[in-house]
Amino acid sequence: MSDDDLIGRLLARVDELESLEAIRSLTFDYCHGFDKRDYDRFMAIWWEDCVWDIGEPFGRFEGHADVHRALHDILWPAWDETLHLCGNNRVAFLGPRHASSECDVQCVGRLAGDDEATIVGASYSDQLEQRDGLWKIAKRKVTIHYFNLVPGLVLSKP
Amino acid sequence: MSDDDLIGRLLARVDELESLEAIRSLTFDYCHGFDKRDYDRFMAIWWEDCVWDIGEPFGRFEGHADVHRALHDILWPAWDETLHLCGNNRVAFLGPRHASSECDVQCVGRLAGDDEATIVGASYSDQLEQRDGLWKIAKRKVTIHYFNLVPGLVLSKP
Amino acid sequence: MSDDDLIGRLLARVDELESLEAIRSLTFDYCHGFDKRDYDRFMAIWWEDCVWDIGEPFGRFEGHADVHRALHDILWPAWDETLHLCGNNRVAFLGPRHASSECDVQCVGRLAGDDEATIVGASYSDQLEQRDGLWKIAKRKVTIHYFNLVPGLVLSKP
Repeated sequence: MSDDDLIGRLLARVDELESLEAIRSLTFDYCHGFDKRDYDRFMAIWWEDCVWDIGEPFGRFEGHADVHRALHDILWPAWDETLHLCGNNRVAFLGPRHASSECDVQCVGRLAGDDEATIVGASYSDQLEQRDGLWKIAKRKVTIHYFNLVPGLVLSKP
Repeated sequence: MSDDDLIGRLLARVDELESLEAIRSLTFDYCHGFDKRDYDRFMAIWWEDCVWDIGEPFGRFEGHADVHRALHDILWPAWDETLHLCGNNRVAFLGPRHASSECDVQCVGRLAGDDEATIVGASYSDQLEQRDGLWKIAKRKVTIHYFNLVPGLVLSKP
Repeated sequence: MSDDDLIGRLLARVDELESLEAIRSLTFDYCHGFDKRDYDRFMAIWWEDCVWDIGEPFGRFEGHADVHRALHDILWPAWDETLHLCGNNRVAFLGPRHASSECDVQCVGRLAGDDEATIVGASYSDQLEQRDGLWKIAKRKVTIHYFNLVPGLVLSKP
């Protein structure tokens, strides 16, 4: 192979490693943005024409205006606090500007009005698109495995 | 250094970054494969001559046929549901085709016949080998730190 | 662009990907070192002149001697066992030798003298510095979101 071919192939591999980091970061910013109630950070992970399909008990949201509404009118009011821990991130590239991603999450939180904590276990299945060099979420499908009170567990700061 | 030397060293570094991703992905596929009962995905992480040493209460399994048996006759029947969240992944390269890896896992699940959830905290210590360009697990040693019922915690979908 | 320029830019990108791995590994070694009581591993993540600011109920520690004292006189005696699972790692480079990092952690453990488990949810906000080619933590600020007993949850090996 010529040096130019070698460098071209290296560039493509480094691009993919960087894309992997960028795609994982979207899910981590979902957690940081949601839990720390950082609106700009949370919104920055979604394409304007995104779909956020949580399913029961919260619903399905399309586009930035709907995600905004979900956050402010439904989700943040529903929870007094949350801590999502996301892991097991797997990314598959479907072309130069499309990827799918899946991960699992365990969330500990407290629903508004509850004295006791709730734990949620879920998986996220994402469709990602790269536009103008930037990766964001085009569609997130949430599958909730369990969503339950932990009897007697009160959450408080030390 | 000549351009060829520079490119050669870059290639080795990109190889290692890609290997790191590949090795981490094996543990993530262990979680996805086990929890979502995706047999092909789970089996694809193990070399044919692997060792999967869980210890008490489940046992030690050698080779694909034994892993198959462990899954179908012991582990999947033992659990009605599981959600493993894996993190703290550390990889050390022991040579071009050998690596060791360690990580921690917190698992929430429900044993068959139980009404209440069980939580498990464990560490995985892995030996990895690259054969024909592919990384898979040669040996996994599981160390379980705790394995206990959570009194009163019922797992259910919302 | 000339080949030399291309190679120079590739080198910078690969450097950054490797730095990202190195910085994440510090937090993972924090968990492994603390939980497995591996003193050398835990100390190796901190610069000599570090700050480890846990806040209530544990305190703020400056420099290796103080971190040593915190471990041996305060933290390890306070806990009979711990398992930290760290995730959501985000790194921002502030210059060639400075970075900030944040992540979240869920910890399950048992305080000395307690029969029941305690869970802790926290975030770590780190300042990192690269000196002589090595990344270590210059400052870690811990924010604890909750720190509570789980009634009835006893931790034991299977």
